[in-house]
Amino acid sequence: MSFSFGSNIRMTVFGGSHTAGIGCVLDGIPAGIAIDLDEVRAFMARRAPGGETSTARAEADEFEVLSGILDGHATGGAIAAVIRNTNTRSQDYSGYLETPRPGHSDLAAILKYGKHHDIRGGGHFSGRLTAPLCFAGGVCLQLLRACGVMVAAHILTLGGIADKAFDPLAPSGEEFAAIEANGFPVILPEAKARMTEKILAAKADGDSLGGVIECVVAGLPAGVGEPMFDSVEAVIAHAVFSVPAVKGIEFGAGFAAAEMRGSENNDALFFDENGDVRARTNNAGGVLGGIATGMPVIFRAAVKPTPSISQSQKTVNLKTRENTQISVGGRHDPSILPRAVPAITAAAAVAIADLMATGRFL
Amino acid sequence: MSFSFGSNIRMTVFGGSHTAGIGCVLDGIPAGIAIDLDEVRAFMARRAPGGETSTARAEADEFEVLSGILDGHATGGAIAAVIRNTNTRSQDYSGYLETPRPGHSDLAAILKYGKHHDIRGGGHFSGRLTAPLCFAGGVCLQLLRACGVMVAAHILTLGGIADKAFDPLAPSGEEFAAIEANGFPVILPEAKARMTEKILAAKADGDSLGGVIECVVAGLPAGVGEPMFDSVEAVIAHAVFSVPAVKGIEFGAGFAAAEMRGSENNDALFFDENGDVRARTNNAGGVLGGIATGMPVIFRAAVKPTPSISQSQKTVNLKTRENTQISVGGRHDPSILPRAVPAITAAAAVAIADLMATGRFL
Amino acid sequence: MSFSFGSNIRMTVFGGSHTAGIGCVLDGIPAGIAIDLDEVRAFMARRAPGGETSTARAEADEFEVLSGILDGHATGGAIAAVIRNTNTRSQDYSGYLETPRPGHSDLAAILKYGKHHDIRGGGHFSGRLTAPLCFAGGVCLQLLRACGVMVAAHILTLGGIADKAFDPLAPSGEEFAAIEANGFPVILPEAKARMTEKILAAKADGDSLGGVIECVVAGLPAGVGEPMFDSVEAVIAHAVFSVPAVKGIEFGAGFAAAEMRGSENNDALFFDENGDVRARTNNAGGVLGGIATGMPVIFRAAVKPTPSISQSQKTVNLKTRENTQISVGGRHDPSILPRAVPAITAAAAVAIADLMATGRFL
Amino acid sequence: MSFSFGSNIRMTVFGGSHTAGIGCVLDGIPAGIAIDLDEVRAFMARRAPGGETSTARAEADEFEVLSGILDGHATGGAIAAVIRNTNTRSQDYSGYLETPRPGHSDLAAILKYGKHHDIRGGGHFSGRLTAPLCFAGGVCLQLLRACGVMVAAHILTLGGIADKAFDPLAPSGEEFAAIEANGFPVILPEAKARMTEKILAAKADGDSLGGVIECVVAGLPAGVGEPMFDSVEAVIAHAVFSVPAVKGIEFGAGFAAAEMRGSENNDALFFDENGDVRARTNNAGGVLGGIATGMPVIFRAAVKPTPSISQSQKTVNLKTRENTQISVGGRHDPSILPRAVPAITAAAAVAIADLMATGRFL
Repeated sequence: MSFSFGSNIRMTVFGGSHTAGIGCVLDGIPAGIAIDLDEVRAFMARRAPGGETSTARAEADEFEVLSGILDGHATGGAIAAVIRNTNTRSQDYSGYLETPRPGHSDLAAILKYGKHHDIRGGGHFSGRLTAPLCFAGGVCLQLLRACGVMVAAHILTLGGIADKAFDPLAPSGEEFAAIEANGFPVILPEAKARMTEKILAAKADGDSLGGVIECVVAGLPAGVGEPMFDSVEAVIAHAVFSVPAVKGIEFGAGFAAAEMRGSENNDALFFDENGDVRARTNNAGGVLGGIATGMPVIFRAAVKPTPSISQSQKTVNLKTRENTQISVGGRHDPSILPRAVPAITAAAAVAIADLMATGRFL
Repeated sequence: MSFSFGSNIRMTVFGGSHTAGIGCVLDGIPAGIAIDLDEVRAFMARRAPGGETSTARAEADEFEVLSGILDGHATGGAIAAVIRNTNTRSQDYSGYLETPRPGHSDLAAILKYGKHHDIRGGGHFSGRLTAPLCFAGGVCLQLLRACGVMVAAHILTLGGIADKAFDPLAPSGEEFAAIEANGFPVILPEAKARMTEKILAAKADGDSLGGVIECVVAGLPAGVGEPMFDSVEAVIAHAVFSVPAVKGIEFGAGFAAAEMRGSENNDALFFDENGDVRARTNNAGGVLGGIATGMPVIFRAAVKPTPSISQSQKTVNLKTRENTQISVGGRHDPSILPRAVPAITAAAAVAIADLMATGRFL
Repeated sequence: MSFSFGSNIRMTVFGGSHTAGIGCVLDGIPAGIAIDLDEVRAFMARRAPGGETSTARAEADEFEVLSGILDGHATGGAIAAVIRNTNTRSQDYSGYLETPRPGHSDLAAILKYGKHHDIRGGGHFSGRLTAPLCFAGGVCLQLLRACGVMVAAHILTLGGIADKAFDPLAPSGEEFAAIEANGFPVILPEAKARMTEKILAAKADGDSLGGVIECVVAGLPAGVGEPMFDSVEAVIAHAVFSVPAVKGIEFGAGFAAAEMRGSENNDALFFDENGDVRARTNNAGGVLGGIATGMPVIFRAAVKPTPSISQSQKTVNLKTRENTQISVGGRHDPSILPRAVPAITAAAAVAIADLMATGRFL
Repeated sequence: MSFSFGSNIRMTVFGGSHTAGIGCVLDGIPAGIAIDLDEVRAFMARRAPGGETSTARAEADEFEVLSGILDGHATGGAIAAVIRNTNTRSQDYSGYLETPRPGHSDLAAILKYGKHHDIRGGGHFSGRLTAPLCFAGGVCLQLLRACGVMVAAHILTLGGIADKAFDPLAPSGEEFAAIEANGFPVILPEAKARMTEKILAAKADGDSLGGVIECVVAGLPAGVGEPMFDSVEAVIAHAVFSVPAVKGIEFGAGFAAAEMRGSENNDALFFDENGDVRARTNNAGGVLGGIATGMPVIFRAAVKPTPSISQSQKTVNLKTRENTQISVGGRHDPSILPRAVPAITAAAAVAIADLMATGRFL
């Protein structure tokens, strides 16, 4: 079903950009798991707008937990969280039912739902729904960490600038910490400076930028993932494509593997000093046959540039049936990348938590 | 569940490389739909081994339909098809429980299932399970065609050789026909010759090749796809990652979109001569907000090189706990790409059929 | 998943008796369907406590719709409703973790969840969660009515008193109206008086009463229901057993059919004056082979007496490991039957709406 | 989906009465579980026709396992079993598309599927599909037994004759053994004789008999079952209503509980001699709040009389649009009860196995 994801750990997301509230119901978190809501808040704050590279719409994204957590622990009931929409300017959007924005869901949504589509702020297609996704992800990150599993992501490339990639064999906690410390999700401080510069330049041009996000799942036990249709790759991809603006995903060497020979791409195995089986390279991205190998799971997601730009664009007027032009006003992110990083982290965390529950690793 | 895919049209696949049989149960095909089993056979023949670029294991892949089709029409019951495994040489595989093959599922499967893992021929991780997938896809292709929807795929690049890409605005039936006519799934005859040469060269080196497959869904009505977690991209990606060896997927401009500005990436809209809204480019790959726009849906999948190669590779012996070497014998495809094309077509067809059923477009 | 029900129309319920709030997310209601929230409120008011036969806990059950409805119509997004818990007295419940109440979920829940079980008011096992169920049902009732389908229920028997049964061949709108008009869900006014008397007598004895609820689905098109595992009976039963205190369900003649011969039980078919095929009796309860026949669907649910009674009962003290006695204080319904009627109506309505969506009757 | 049941252990059933074959795919059985196929065969033999009280259609119900079991153990792959239909007389059925049989699925199926409905032998509505259900159940019974859980059923009443009921506090292995030993599923040998007599009398009259089946799940750990929508009762009821001819189900005291007061119905708790918490009665049928209490789970299912009877019955001719009469020829069971016992046992076993997998009790 469209607003639910997962089998044994399932999140259900609701709301739209300008509805009274948005939120999430998270079912399947085992009773007794400790959940620190301040930590969830801190994680969500990384997604919330703020700073010169993001939209001017100020939303504190304060959530209220209605059920499922008592005295800091999951009760076994469904965890429900609600976030109020407060800073909405619906009048900005009224015209898009007539003049759909290029690169947006407007046209497809109108054709799907008809005149009752809630187009305000993009309705339920808005990136705003990644706030409840991040709530669910924030809870799952704590569950995973209790099992020794870490999920982290950063902007790998943006506007031609590259951050340092994770070590595919042994991603380090220092890198994870750097991402959170920088106030901008990259490992290298200089990447922050240069990417910010690129975003502001695009903004000045009334334009926007895309980029690539790299995500790692470290500590995932070998054996997680189900054969055939619920592989680690399939389930993560399903979740990650649910983050708006994602247009591609690749695991390990990914598209580069398509240009390799088997002798290059196969990861050689060996016993490490602890007697554990390890691979000398990680072209597989930690997944073979759809099953986690015990090596870090690594994937990259391609994020398109924000479609809302103030430059004039060609579109149609569905009422007059004429070709026309549009300049998208309102408050938009010149690049969604910084805020998409926690969203993709959250999607991966929920997917992994569900796979671990299914495989009885929880 | 791992061996089932889909909600309103659901396929359940069973079997392993060397089990007595493999097969598929397809539930949800509306009663009364005409199904030409010879056409399904012809589609599956494109996946079956044969020719100099594929494995020497000869499997006719003759299926028997046990239920669900009567007098050439779906009855509304579950459609079950069984394919016998005939040409199995299980002794080839016995050692891999001790010495897992690099790049294969062996190690992960052993860690997941323990000693009862059916490692013969890779068990249920074998590419052989794409035969029943192709049965399901072959049926869904006919269902889709009856609704005006065509799905086609070809090898876009392999070993540095590129086929002609589909026209992203109007993929042509001639191209679809060429792919099937060539005996090798490319549009350009010269691509066949040059790719075959590359595959044979890799084979001669005891090595293998990966590549990229491009797939198009033409005629998909605007509005197909569900918001948030069941987008066209998410559901297709889920299905396509279920085809062994797929390591990446991108829609429309995909990873290239990550390097564009919004003004480049947004597809301008206009009224065409028939008064229909069309886009001047198709960077979106026919999907915005997760919903089909009415433009062709286009995606590319990265397929890694076959991990089974006769060259010596480094691995471990789980019994002696020593590092060792392995040369993978048996009968393998030096490149799985030609046979992966119908598998990916089938995965996309089932995914699209399920989305259309869910969205009540059937 | 435990807190979600349905495939194509899916409700997700959250909350516990004494959590900050309870609520419901309803996914799959087609865009454009008119939804009158005052009518939903009126339906829910029939479930809310009030009157001499129910608990003294006063809860207005005012809901707030956070999303999914705009200008009185479904938008196609998930419909979320939240109800605040206001009148909670959690101190009433603290001891039940040590001394579980006979007939309650206490013991099973403690064994399932451990010390983090939210036992306040019965936690998520409370009948209070039928409030969000009734929200979902209230919306689905409107969707169904728009398709010509009516769902109604009443107390058939309670404390030895019987109401008039629905006409199994042609249940009448007058009967449906009477149920709602009486302020007590029975057809006959005298049944209200006599049942109320029985309930008050039980209450005076510190005891409680069960009863049987009869429910009819009128106007259901022939063909609704899926073969094998998603029959009309299976799906309704699944939903109805989710209403606390239900211990049995039967369709049509039900357990009485088990004592009949085929010649008695089979419903004879004939063409009525309009040329429609009808049955002369309705022992089948409107379902054959799991599929709706076009006759009214009729079922009866057995509801056990409220387990909370003030009489002294034998139980155990899990801390001291000694047998002991308990008298359940707090505010309880001496008979849950009047309030269970809308809950069962709601469960049936959601189940039928989901089946109609699955069968593409919506 | 209609032909699949279960979440973490899922069975998919296919076929129709007169299709080439019928079968089952069972997904989720943990790798390494020992499965004795001869024992599955013996279980299925109890369902197979044979003896004077059943149909003259002789079907050995020999199954072939195509995958998922190797050397007597589950591999972790999907277990697929196929049963050939051999003894079919399709010509018996051709007229029912015109003249639907009262009490049968014929009319509803024709209205649902149209002219492509496979009416031969009742198509996929045939009781014959309980053969693959029994295969799945036979496997799950072994899985459950390995966890200390036993499922057993018998005919409780038929034609006014009652068998001894299970001891609701401590059902005995001797009773389970008696049921299997009698060649007729009752505990008391005299019940066999008298019920057989009743069945033969009905048969002599060209008529049929229904009855009530009682089923017990012994040894189920407390805590199995999920709150709200996946209670033990809901999931078992869903599965059991999938057995054709079931029209009612009740747990514990069931409909009798509806006539009790709380002081009677509540099961008093105490510490037994081993220090375990037990109940002095089992009106709850081993389930409170939807969760297993640790007491035996007990339910009863009402089975209607076989609708196929040779007596003349009133029906319609859909072609001539006239009322008419029908006498159902062919080969039918004068009472399905003896063969429904293993089917209901199987349904309960699969439901319980799925609940245990979901609750991580496996």
